[in-house]
Amino acid sequence: MLNIDRLYENVAQKGHVCVGLDTCIDYVPDAERQKYANDAQAVLAFNKALIDETHDVCACFKVQIAYYEEMGVQGLVTYAKTLEHIRSKGALAIADIKRGDIADTALRYAKAHFTGEFAADFVTLTPYLGLDSLDPWLKEAKAHDKGAFVLMRTSNPGYKDFQSLNVDNRCLYNVVGERMSALAQQYMGKNGYGMFGVVVGCTETDEAARIRAENPGLFFLIPGYGAQGGSAQNAALLLRDNNGGVVNASRSIITAWRNEEKDADNIIAAKAARCATIRMRDEILEALRK
Amino acid sequence: MLNIDRLYENVAQKGHVCVGLDTCIDYVPDAERQKYANDAQAVLAFNKALIDETHDVCACFKVQIAYYEEMGVQGLVTYAKTLEHIRSKGALAIADIKRGDIADTALRYAKAHFTGEFAADFVTLTPYLGLDSLDPWLKEAKAHDKGAFVLMRTSNPGYKDFQSLNVDNRCLYNVVGERMSALAQQYMGKNGYGMFGVVVGCTETDEAARIRAENPGLFFLIPGYGAQGGSAQNAALLLRDNNGGVVNASRSIITAWRNEEKDADNIIAAKAARCATIRMRDEILEALRK
Repeated sequence: MLNIDRLYENVAQKGHVCVGLDTCIDYVPDAERQKYANDAQAVLAFNKALIDETHDVCACFKVQIAYYEEMGVQGLVTYAKTLEHIRSKGALAIADIKRGDIADTALRYAKAHFTGEFAADFVTLTPYLGLDSLDPWLKEAKAHDKGAFVLMRTSNPGYKDFQSLNVDNRCLYNVVGERMSALAQQYMGKNGYGMFGVVVGCTETDEAARIRAENPGLFFLIPGYGAQGGSAQNAALLLRDNNGGVVNASRSIITAWRNEEKDADNIIAAKAARCATIRMRDEILEALRK
Repeated sequence: MLNIDRLYENVAQKGHVCVGLDTCIDYVPDAERQKYANDAQAVLAFNKALIDETHDVCACFKVQIAYYEEMGVQGLVTYAKTLEHIRSKGALAIADIKRGDIADTALRYAKAHFTGEFAADFVTLTPYLGLDSLDPWLKEAKAHDKGAFVLMRTSNPGYKDFQSLNVDNRCLYNVVGERMSALAQQYMGKNGYGMFGVVVGCTETDEAARIRAENPGLFFLIPGYGAQGGSAQNAALLLRDNNGGVVNASRSIITAWRNEEKDADNIIAAKAARCATIRMRDEILEALRK
C-alpha cells in the first residue's frame, strides 16, 4: 500500500484536517515557556501535547520547517523529535519544506527528509527547476514508501506573479498540474491517486472546480484555510467524492486556546486545539453535503 | 556599503570563483575520516582546510545545505560551523538553500538564514511563489545587510520544463529576470548591481548574451561550471565589464585531490583545491580577454 493510500484512508475515517505545526514560541502559553531551558524545548512539549490531543481527529500533521530552522540547531532537534512523536502515534507527517534542487543535491535532500532523523511521510516540493529535479525524490519515495506534494497554485496573493502567467491560453499552474497528473499515472495507488500530489490553496475559488476536474489523479494538499481567508466551501471545491485532499490549518488550531483563555497550560491549549480541529472537520463535512 | 558591493569588490580583487562546499563524506580523504567521531565532524575539518587554503583566491563560498541536512542535526552543526569559519576569514558565504515560502513563514526563513547560527551573507531563493514571497527577505536583508540570488535559469536539462515555457513570446525565465531587474532598481548598490541578483546557469549558451544585456543591474550567481559541463567561455557570456557575476564550482575544486592522489590528507586536498581554484580563476579571466 502506498503512503497516499494511507492518507486517503485517514481522510475517510478521520476527516480532511491537516493540523499545521507551524509552531513559534509566541504560540506557546507563557506559563509553559518558563518550564523549559530554551524555546525549542518549550515548542517540543507544546507540539507533543497538540499531537496527543488531535491525532485521532485529523488526517495528518504538517510540520513547517521554517519555524524550526529559525531556532537554529536546537530547533531542528525539536523538528526531528516532533516528527518522531507523530510517528509514535501511528499518524502521518507532511514535512513542509518546499525544497527544490537538481541531480545529486536533490538526492541528498530526498535522503535527508525521507530517511534518518528528519524522516517524514510526505514532503512539499517546488516545481520551478523542472521534472528532472523530482526524479531523485520519486526514486527515494518508491524505495521508502513516501510521497510528495508539488506546488501548483499557492494561497498567497503573489501566486499571480508567475503561477498565473498565460502559457498557451492557460495558466502556468495548469501546466504544472498537467505534468504532475501525467507523473501520477505512473505511480498510482489503489484509491485512484498518485504517489505525488500537488499543493492548491483554497483562498481562490476561480478555476477551483476546473483544477479539480482536470487532475482527478492528484491528491491535494490545501493550504489557506482560516487565518488566510479560505473557507470550508472553497476547500470543498477542491475535494472529490469526499476525499482527494487534506485541508491545512495552523494558527486557527494551535492558537485556539487564546480565544478562551488569557493564559493556559499545554493541556488546556491542546484541548482547545482538539475542539478547533473537530469544528473544522465538521465544517468541511458540512460543506461537502451541500 | 551593501553586501553586493563587497562581493563586487571581491570579484575585482580575487576573481570570479565561488567555491562550492557541497561536501559529502565521500569527498573527504579516507585517512581523515577515521580521525573523527562521525561524518559531520570529518566534513567540518575538511571544509575548514578548504576555506583556509582558498579564501584569498576566490570571491566567495557557497554552502549547499542539502548535503548537511542529509547528515541530520549533526550535519547542521557542521553547516553552522562552516559558515562561522567563512566569516572568521572575512570571506563571504552564499547559503544555497533555494527556499521559498509565504508571509510569516518566509520571515522565519529569512531570520533563520540571515541571523543566528545559520547566518550567511547571501541566500538562494526560488521564485515560483511570487514577489510577495520575497518581501520578508528584502526587509531582513535591508536590516542586516544581506543579499539573495533568485533562480532565473538553472543549469539542469529540466530547466526547459517550466522555465522556458513561452509567455508572451519570451521564456518564463525572462519574465523572472524582468521582475527581478525592476526590484534591483529599488535596492541598488554603488557598483550598479541590486541587493538581490539571480541564478543563471552556464550550461546553455542560448540567449546568454541576451540575458546579460537585458538585466544589467542583476548580479549573477552562475552554476554549472565544470562537472555539469559549463565552460569558462559560457560563463564569460554572463559577465559584464569583467564583473557582475560569480561562477560556482564544487566537485571540480573540492575533489581535485583525487586527480593527483589515491588518498591524501586534508592539507594535500586543500592545496589541490587551491590550485584548482586558481586554474579556474585564470581560465575565466582568459575567456574574458578574448
